[in-house]
Amino acid sequence: MTHALLPDSDPLTAVRIANSMRATGSTVSFTDWFAECRLNSFAHTERISLDRLNGWHTDPHTGDIRHQSGKFFSITGMAVDIPDGPVEHWHQPIILQPEVGILGIIVKELDGVLHCLMQAKVEPGNENGLQLSPTVQATRSNYTRVHGGKAVPYLEYFVDTTRSRVIADVRQSEQGSWFLRKRNRNMVVEVTGEIEVLDGFRWMTLGEVHRLLAEDDVVNMDARTVLACLPFAGADLDLVHLSTGDGLRASLIRSCSDSSGSLHPLGSVLSWITDRRTLVDINTTVLPLNAIEGWRRGPAAISHESGMFFDVIGVDVTAGGREVGQWMQPMLEPRGVGVVAFLVRDIGGVLHALVRARLEPGFVDVVELAPTVQCTPENYSVLPSAARPRYLDEVLAAGPERTRFAAVLSEEGGRFYHARNSYRIVETDLDPLDEPPDFRWLTVRQIIELLRHSHYVNIQARTMITCLHAMVAGLFVAHDG
Amino acid sequence: MTHALLPDSDPLTAVRIANSMRATGSTVSFTDWFAECRLNSFAHTERISLDRLNGWHTDPHTGDIRHQSGKFFSITGMAVDIPDGPVEHWHQPIILQPEVGILGIIVKELDGVLHCLMQAKVEPGNENGLQLSPTVQATRSNYTRVHGGKAVPYLEYFVDTTRSRVIADVRQSEQGSWFLRKRNRNMVVEVTGEIEVLDGFRWMTLGEVHRLLAEDDVVNMDARTVLACLPFAGADLDLVHLSTGDGLRASLIRSCSDSSGSLHPLGSVLSWITDRRTLVDINTTVLPLNAIEGWRRGPAAISHESGMFFDVIGVDVTAGGREVGQWMQPMLEPRGVGVVAFLVRDIGGVLHALVRARLEPGFVDVVELAPTVQCTPENYSVLPSAARPRYLDEVLAAGPERTRFAAVLSEEGGRFYHARNSYRIVETDLDPLDEPPDFRWLTVRQIIELLRHSHYVNIQARTMITCLHAMVAGLFVAHDG
Repeated sequence: MTHALLPDSDPLTAVRIANSMRATGSTVSFTDWFAECRLNSFAHTERISLDRLNGWHTDPHTGDIRHQSGKFFSITGMAVDIPDGPVEHWHQPIILQPEVGILGIIVKELDGVLHCLMQAKVEPGNENGLQLSPTVQATRSNYTRVHGGKAVPYLEYFVDTTRSRVIADVRQSEQGSWFLRKRNRNMVVEVTGEIEVLDGFRWMTLGEVHRLLAEDDVVNMDARTVLACLPFAGADLDLVHLSTGDGLRASLIRSCSDSSGSLHPLGSVLSWITDRRTLVDINTTVLPLNAIEGWRRGPAAISHESGMFFDVIGVDVTAGGREVGQWMQPMLEPRGVGVVAFLVRDIGGVLHALVRARLEPGFVDVVELAPTVQCTPENYSVLPSAARPRYLDEVLAAGPERTRFAAVLSEEGGRFYHARNSYRIVETDLDPLDEPPDFRWLTVRQIIELLRHSHYVNIQARTMITCLHAMVAGLFVAHDG
Repeated sequence: MTHALLPDSDPLTAVRIANSMRATGSTVSFTDWFAECRLNSFAHTERISLDRLNGWHTDPHTGDIRHQSGKFFSITGMAVDIPDGPVEHWHQPIILQPEVGILGIIVKELDGVLHCLMQAKVEPGNENGLQLSPTVQATRSNYTRVHGGKAVPYLEYFVDTTRSRVIADVRQSEQGSWFLRKRNRNMVVEVTGEIEVLDGFRWMTLGEVHRLLAEDDVVNMDARTVLACLPFAGADLDLVHLSTGDGLRASLIRSCSDSSGSLHPLGSVLSWITDRRTLVDINTTVLPLNAIEGWRRGPAAISHESGMFFDVIGVDVTAGGREVGQWMQPMLEPRGVGVVAFLVRDIGGVLHALVRARLEPGFVDVVELAPTVQCTPENYSVLPSAARPRYLDEVLAAGPERTRFAAVLSEEGGRFYHARNSYRIVETDLDPLDEPPDFRWLTVRQIIELLRHSHYVNIQARTMITCLHAMVAGLFVAHDG
């Protein structure tokens, strides 16, 4: 009996991804289709009192807010202690959603080019309603149909992977400041057989999706995180992308190449992560929501007494084109628009991004790699000056000639109400040898390698990786490469 | 300004490890040294009542057992729910030890060959007292000197890694059935400068340590787990090990080679792990120790009413040659000797081991990869027959011609009292295409790759990997290769 053995590496997938990126097409037909979708699907979201949320109840003893089915998610309180942090101790509300959902994109070759089956989907928290979403966004409650709604289309391709080829499949964290240990399963599966394209769905090349990243609030968070998990690092990408020379784009393509070196070998990066996770002392305790200090529950919202951070609000949603026509739910509404940025620079011919080992109380494993800057600047008006994020001023001061990407993108519209961040990629000439203990310069390829595993790269950094990936094809970088 | 970039891979380290393995030397001088160490260090361990443990107290409300300093560890209760498991629900005592300690081995080239600085160390739970240990075993309480003992020698090389080269550095789990989310930092650091060899320490080649694995209860658990984290997979190991042909050893060497294929590419293995972690439904809740059902606290011990599983006992320790001369502590004493085994077979010329995605309630992330079999056979006399471990009978029935490695090895003697497992590597001709959902055939190289990260490979599998590694040099495999 002989058995065919397989290699671990799959260089062809990276080349096929690169080819799909180069097919940027035109946005005209997308714009028409998206406008048509907007006519067929809408969400009207109205704020209502937390006391009037049908289907949800507030536990009289703890103040925790739960769905009456016990499913979906709940909102409780949390105490955070970080003895060595600039803020040593605080309380906050936090979302508990222990079930692992699926965020998945089906890909298929059409005319020899990989296409993604994308969905125009309305979420109640989206400021603009409709955004471009993965093929499937399903919580476990969703697909076991706790709410009695319609089946989630295309879910079967992710649940039963014998009918597809798995290209990416990894559980990744979501906002660790707002969720306690939330993970979703990020999947990309390739299908070769016929698939019916339902209303509200559309085959798009990677290039077509990528160019939309530069438009505010179009590509949703779930699409961005799934796309970040694509194994797009490879050997000969410079040949596919027809790039040579010294510009930012050539440096970025070398940063995605398997054969380029890096400032720190991966083993050294892993040792640094081990070190941060061992040294940082953080303790989180779940508390009754009515026992957290510094927060007040009024009829409209649970708010911090400073007026900063976020509110927990109630909404009444009427939606068309979604599984259920009308429902109510609590949501988290952040105050202010956040700033999320990667500082990047060429080091020895290869683009490196300055990542931060960032502590968020909801992470399963202490720290994950985050963008250089990730904050809501307004919040720091009530915090000690030592808490002001390092490099924030460098990012805010960067002019257009150094800002290689900038767009305001929405966070997940199913839990967060009008949560938006200004995502930026900023070129810098910081000395790469001057790294603070919680920062390291990494190549894109190294971040992609870590993205094969859970617990390494946070959701904001995953959006940034998708934006960097889009820049590989020459998008957003007009003056260069 | 130009910067030298470094490659991620480091083929030279694998070759240097291989050369150190081939230097097996003789055991005569080790035996003499070890006998001499035994004269200078001893531990006399006497069982005493849990009520008489100086320095420890039982909380009158919860029954939990804690050190009066609040440090070291505590023993509490846990409820485990696994709705789809053969045993759906149980209670048990569990050890809480949230701090991350360091298990570290210093390596150094002597006469061109890597040597490990090993320690002859007494632990109170070791049936035979002295065992061969890593350079450093330090809990955080240990090295911050909560107990007022002596400093841990050589610890500075692991805490300040600017004076050494880091070869391995990863936090790994320990027994998930006995510890709640315990992790230790496993480190190997290479030093080039002079180091004084203190009493009770000795430079040994990997080959010298490896051949001792076949002796019962000599190489301790902490040494085995650290050695498993060595990056010993490489490109041209067949040349270093002078191996050709069809035997088990040649197949094993190809299994460690970067250029060999495998039954499942690593991406497919990662997707399988994601799938098991998503599908398995486990819920653990910490309970007061006096609230757990099925367990009784008597004067001598906390025991399960069936007499199975394990006891929590108290011990009074008098030790010489250790940091503190006399102390008392609770320990966990398992009933019976366990069986831990890898089934292995050649698939397409490359040795594969049958790993199990195993659920243990103390794991941080649901399941980790475990040996094919890991159990204490006696415990199953009180459990449903569906709970009897798959492949246990295959392992127990294997004759000497198929058992390529067998030794009884001790688990950690600082927390566990006379905890011993019969570790075995058994050749099988099972059909590799007939894999139950929680089992997969992996190559050694794939397991080594996963060992760079936390949360993947459990402590028993790490012992087995060290034993497989030892077999690469031809140890234990007399009739072959």
